[in-house]
Amino acid sequence: MSDPRNAALKYSQDNRARTLEELKELVAIPSVSADPAYKADILRAADWVVNKLKALGFQNVKTLDTGGHPMVYGDLMNAGEGAPTLLIYGHYDVQPADPMELWETPAFEGVQKGDLLFGRGASDMKGQVIASIAAVEAALQAGSVPVNIKWMIEGEEETGSPTMAQFIQEHADLFAADFALNPDAGMLTPTQPTITYGLRGMSYFELHITGPALDLHSGFFGGTVRNPANELARVLGSMQDADGRVTIPGFYDKVRELEEAERADFRRLPQDDSFYLQQSGSKALWGDKDFSAYERATAQPTLDINGLLSGYTSEGPKTVLPAKAMAKFSCRLVPDQDPFEIEALVRKYIEDTIDPSVSWELKLLSDAIPSISERDSAAVQAMAKAQETVWGVRPIFRREGGSVPVVGHLQGLGIESINVGSGLPDDQLHSPNERLHLPTWEKEIDAMIHFIYNLGE
Amino acid sequence: MSDPRNAALKYSQDNRARTLEELKELVAIPSVSADPAYKADILRAADWVVNKLKALGFQNVKTLDTGGHPMVYGDLMNAGEGAPTLLIYGHYDVQPADPMELWETPAFEGVQKGDLLFGRGASDMKGQVIASIAAVEAALQAGSVPVNIKWMIEGEEETGSPTMAQFIQEHADLFAADFALNPDAGMLTPTQPTITYGLRGMSYFELHITGPALDLHSGFFGGTVRNPANELARVLGSMQDADGRVTIPGFYDKVRELEEAERADFRRLPQDDSFYLQQSGSKALWGDKDFSAYERATAQPTLDINGLLSGYTSEGPKTVLPAKAMAKFSCRLVPDQDPFEIEALVRKYIEDTIDPSVSWELKLLSDAIPSISERDSAAVQAMAKAQETVWGVRPIFRREGGSVPVVGHLQGLGIESINVGSGLPDDQLHSPNERLHLPTWEKEIDAMIHFIYNLGE
Repeated sequence: MSDPRNAALKYSQDNRARTLEELKELVAIPSVSADPAYKADILRAADWVVNKLKALGFQNVKTLDTGGHPMVYGDLMNAGEGAPTLLIYGHYDVQPADPMELWETPAFEGVQKGDLLFGRGASDMKGQVIASIAAVEAALQAGSVPVNIKWMIEGEEETGSPTMAQFIQEHADLFAADFALNPDAGMLTPTQPTITYGLRGMSYFELHITGPALDLHSGFFGGTVRNPANELARVLGSMQDADGRVTIPGFYDKVRELEEAERADFRRLPQDDSFYLQQSGSKALWGDKDFSAYERATAQPTLDINGLLSGYTSEGPKTVLPAKAMAKFSCRLVPDQDPFEIEALVRKYIEDTIDPSVSWELKLLSDAIPSISERDSAAVQAMAKAQETVWGVRPIFRREGGSVPVVGHLQGLGIESINVGSGLPDDQLHSPNERLHLPTWEKEIDAMIHFIYNLGE
Repeated sequence: MSDPRNAALKYSQDNRARTLEELKELVAIPSVSADPAYKADILRAADWVVNKLKALGFQNVKTLDTGGHPMVYGDLMNAGEGAPTLLIYGHYDVQPADPMELWETPAFEGVQKGDLLFGRGASDMKGQVIASIAAVEAALQAGSVPVNIKWMIEGEEETGSPTMAQFIQEHADLFAADFALNPDAGMLTPTQPTITYGLRGMSYFELHITGPALDLHSGFFGGTVRNPANELARVLGSMQDADGRVTIPGFYDKVRELEEAERADFRRLPQDDSFYLQQSGSKALWGDKDFSAYERATAQPTLDINGLLSGYTSEGPKTVLPAKAMAKFSCRLVPDQDPFEIEALVRKYIEDTIDPSVSWELKLLSDAIPSISERDSAAVQAMAKAQETVWGVRPIFRREGGSVPVVGHLQGLGIESINVGSGLPDDQLHSPNERLHLPTWEKEIDAMIHFIYNLGE
């Protein structure tokens, strides 16, 4: 145990309990980025990360003004100019916790039950941020780190990183790196290490339709003017056919066809259709029959309504013809779709479809470029080897259905991301009772330590 | 001024200020029938009416258990068996007042500004209940009332009178009458007295669609299972075509064709298309081009969404694939459609259309039979003459787009209703800043006094 790698592994092992306490501290800060009511907590979470990086001896540690929630930066370039530079990405913000009444433990408290730690952000991705910090801390304590390290911990991922495109462009020099580590991508099962080489992008919309000047009595006016809620249903309802294909003209034009080799890999994944059926709790699966559920979830675009609101929604009947109706809806995108081209297609579709007697406004609330990366780069192979050392099996390569906008932006700077993480499919991300599987999380810390040393070999 | 008619008119005139104070008292009781939170206020409003009728000397005054909110009953049969019996209908309940923030005066306070009295229920229909009580009070004070009078003041009209069908059937003897006065039907303009001979019926639905067992991450699951909000939009959105016709098979089968004579009458009404355009504040009118806006609003059936709720509706983007979606929607019906047959057609349409991978529940929250009555009965002519005396012009005969379920139920007992009232099209019924035009309201009191005496001639 005299070499740095083993010393780091031992240090990390000896400090597990403290590391878990640090994770609970961070989960206890309700850093919800979507809701302005939590602004002070967002700043507290950023400060928590700043203080931790400073304590580890990082330099230039600071929060950067993004125009939105602050970005935490820090670096340690002691490995020298010849050594590679690793950019470690993360986000300290979390999804809203509602509906609160469905949580069985307090949403903003890390509560351990057996192997699981419950709490909003435990898995997505405060657990992953703490794991990468713990791995770097262990390597620093062991005295010899073979790579330069930069941190990029943002506070807006859960609102689609709206400022990141411009911010990363403007700070291209600061974040210059040979590759990036993104532990926000999760893994298949606790026993199957995973490297995610494709991520979906996104265009997230909010559509407002207004009709009459005020809410009307449906008896007096019903039949004379277009009801904005009916029109919202008609326009949104017509955007998909019964087979699950999006009907917006041009929507599929840039979708890169799946290679037969990829599809063969996918068929070896444990996520067969029965997996999705069980995990979703739906009565049956649904969607384009030309693709497996896994392919639909990761390598095909979607159109999902995320929220609907109009008129009277409390108990009993109220015979109102509502003045307005609102929907949030989003398209997950795959290479080589572009979120702004999709926005233009959606806008044109609404223009062409909507009744001219109503007014409407479409806002693009967030956008993310879909990404796809090489599977045989030195950095990816360093991670693959690290995972095999820890778990005893080679990682599986997969695509992911979620979006990490920064991965797309970094790709634009020529920095490819290694997408990993200890998040599991049943962690209930974005749902009540989010949780982290602690044994997997601990393995991930070890794998990151191996990764750092593998990079130096 | 020695005859009872003139004495009654004078008494009424002399007591106008007190009558207005009584209306303000009743408006100040927030008797919202749709929301169980207001149950105590519902009972207070019923008691207010009971006490008023007792004070006037009515007999058998009591609240009757309907299974829902209580019915106020009272009678005075002093005119004898040879005299006709008039049943006066009303409702003491009101619509919910939300959105509260749009009220410029307190919703549950009668606030007078010039000729207008603002407050929830001022027009619909506490003002009308007080007007009919004031007219009867005046006739009683004048000493000679030529008709027997029964009161039927219910507390569930704004929730569609769900218990009335059975209740009226079970109390057919108690409510036996020669004709009914229903002052809930309003008038065209302050200078044009109006008798409403047709009312639309209604089937009001609540539809719940559920898909996954819990809210899912749209990145991980989007594309694999049917999104209940998408399915809600698709199913509801397909129930109408772009021309405004309901697409549900069989929906129009029982719609009675408009007579050419009726359409000719309608064309003489002041409610031309520009009226609806101005009153609604919409950019343009909409609907089946084969009918005028007035015909669409009164003599054609509709399908209007009254409420939509699903997923995340607060600020910012949340990438949730919601577990459930809800809509309230209602069909206004015209003779000879039947609310339960329409329910069956809607249910079958959903069954035939909806994706089998989601679960759904359709509830009929309220129902009302459409009604149509004779225009030349003695009672209708007594009212026509009364209105001409007060306003100086003959009343206009029209159909109405709203629903008064009790009118349909009474029709079932052979009791035809005379549908009048001082409500005006711009009273903002069911909307914020509901108001009553007081000069018209006062004329209506006088017209009811004349009506009572005309019945005895």
